[in-house]
Amino acid sequence: MVRQILEWNENCHDEIHSLLNDKNVLMINVMGSPGGGKTTLIMRLIESLKSKYNIGVIEGDIAGVIDAEKIAAMGIHVVQLNTEGACHIEAMSIKNILPQFDLDKIDILIVENIGNLVCPAEFDIGEDLKIALLSVPEGDDKVEKYPLMFTRSNALVINKYDMKAYFNFDENRVIKHAKAFNKDLEIFPINSINGDGFNDFLNFIEKHIKKGSAK
Amino acid sequence: MVRQILEWNENCHDEIHSLLNDKNVLMINVMGSPGGGKTTLIMRLIESLKSKYNIGVIEGDIAGVIDAEKIAAMGIHVVQLNTEGACHIEAMSIKNILPQFDLDKIDILIVENIGNLVCPAEFDIGEDLKIALLSVPEGDDKVEKYPLMFTRSNALVINKYDMKAYFNFDENRVIKHAKAFNKDLEIFPINSINGDGFNDFLNFIEKHIKKGSAK
Repeated sequence: MVRQILEWNENCHDEIHSLLNDKNVLMINVMGSPGGGKTTLIMRLIESLKSKYNIGVIEGDIAGVIDAEKIAAMGIHVVQLNTEGACHIEAMSIKNILPQFDLDKIDILIVENIGNLVCPAEFDIGEDLKIALLSVPEGDDKVEKYPLMFTRSNALVINKYDMKAYFNFDENRVIKHAKAFNKDLEIFPINSINGDGFNDFLNFIEKHIKKGSAK
Repeated sequence: MVRQILEWNENCHDEIHSLLNDKNVLMINVMGSPGGGKTTLIMRLIESLKSKYNIGVIEGDIAGVIDAEKIAAMGIHVVQLNTEGACHIEAMSIKNILPQFDLDKIDILIVENIGNLVCPAEFDIGEDLKIALLSVPEGDDKVEKYPLMFTRSNALVINKYDMKAYFNFDENRVIKHAKAFNKDLEIFPINSINGDGFNDFLNFIEKHIKKGSAK
């Protein structure tokens, strides 16, 4: 039965991907554990890109609107997707939400997935880029323990890198195992306080933007 | 279909619960995000209790044996349960593993669930106590975002409490929302470096032990 659900998701994500491609919208799926800093990373991206591009955000949460309110306060069109218990976002939910965006005007659509290092990695949602976020306090053994997330992502952000000294975190262990699963994975350690390392990640994202907006 | 799986799990967890009750074995299900410190908490419990009680451990992981090896090095009988992708432990897996323990001799059976703040909360596995672990770096908004875990647990350990100053963490926000969902939830902030607060949690666990062993 899980297989059947995945196949159904598959058809739907292809349809979303084609639609967004026709509209030259870059869709980014941001995934990681609860509390790793997904929202903060997205807000930093928005801050850096909003003067040049039109951005839309889909905020995935089990419950509540905490993060969506933060994004909306930045003047960004955000749609809250509450899964009401489900541990990941499926393509069908994205398909249902897309009409709430003017895709002719949007350049970048960012989806913040449910905080979960396991299930979201299984479900393509029509995105161009999967971003895995791992924060230093989670520990340097997470790639070995939760391989799929790192195998299927285009980029890995190692967040809260400034906390490295407090958590006995060996980034070489992370990089070694992540590259063994996925040799093309691009890895960006980011210092969450002063933003060191963020510009490399920003350049990576900008390289994938498909159009310049009327802005 | 999910409903059907849950019902099937339900029957099985009742059977496990009865069996362990007959044998006076206390079963503890430890749940929380990846990297919150579940293994470290379990190791501290073992260190405090192993001279008085016989302890068995089931280590749940998507992949690998990293944590099981740490537990085995303490001289504890541990069985590794690899879910090979699945995001939680189901009762049927526990049932299949139980014959590997001598339940007449075991006083406490600790299950470390998959690192995941969502799915494990949905699945009873025959346990007496559900322990939710939230670590300070994950942030103080997690109860609101992932309510089921906190609603269904008997105790909440707020781990890495010594990191509070670095993460702008307001434990009153956590406690307020957790108690609103679950007024009987017992809450234990624990300093992971010097162990402050651990003894209260240890007393809570000891209160639930059903028998003294031959030790």
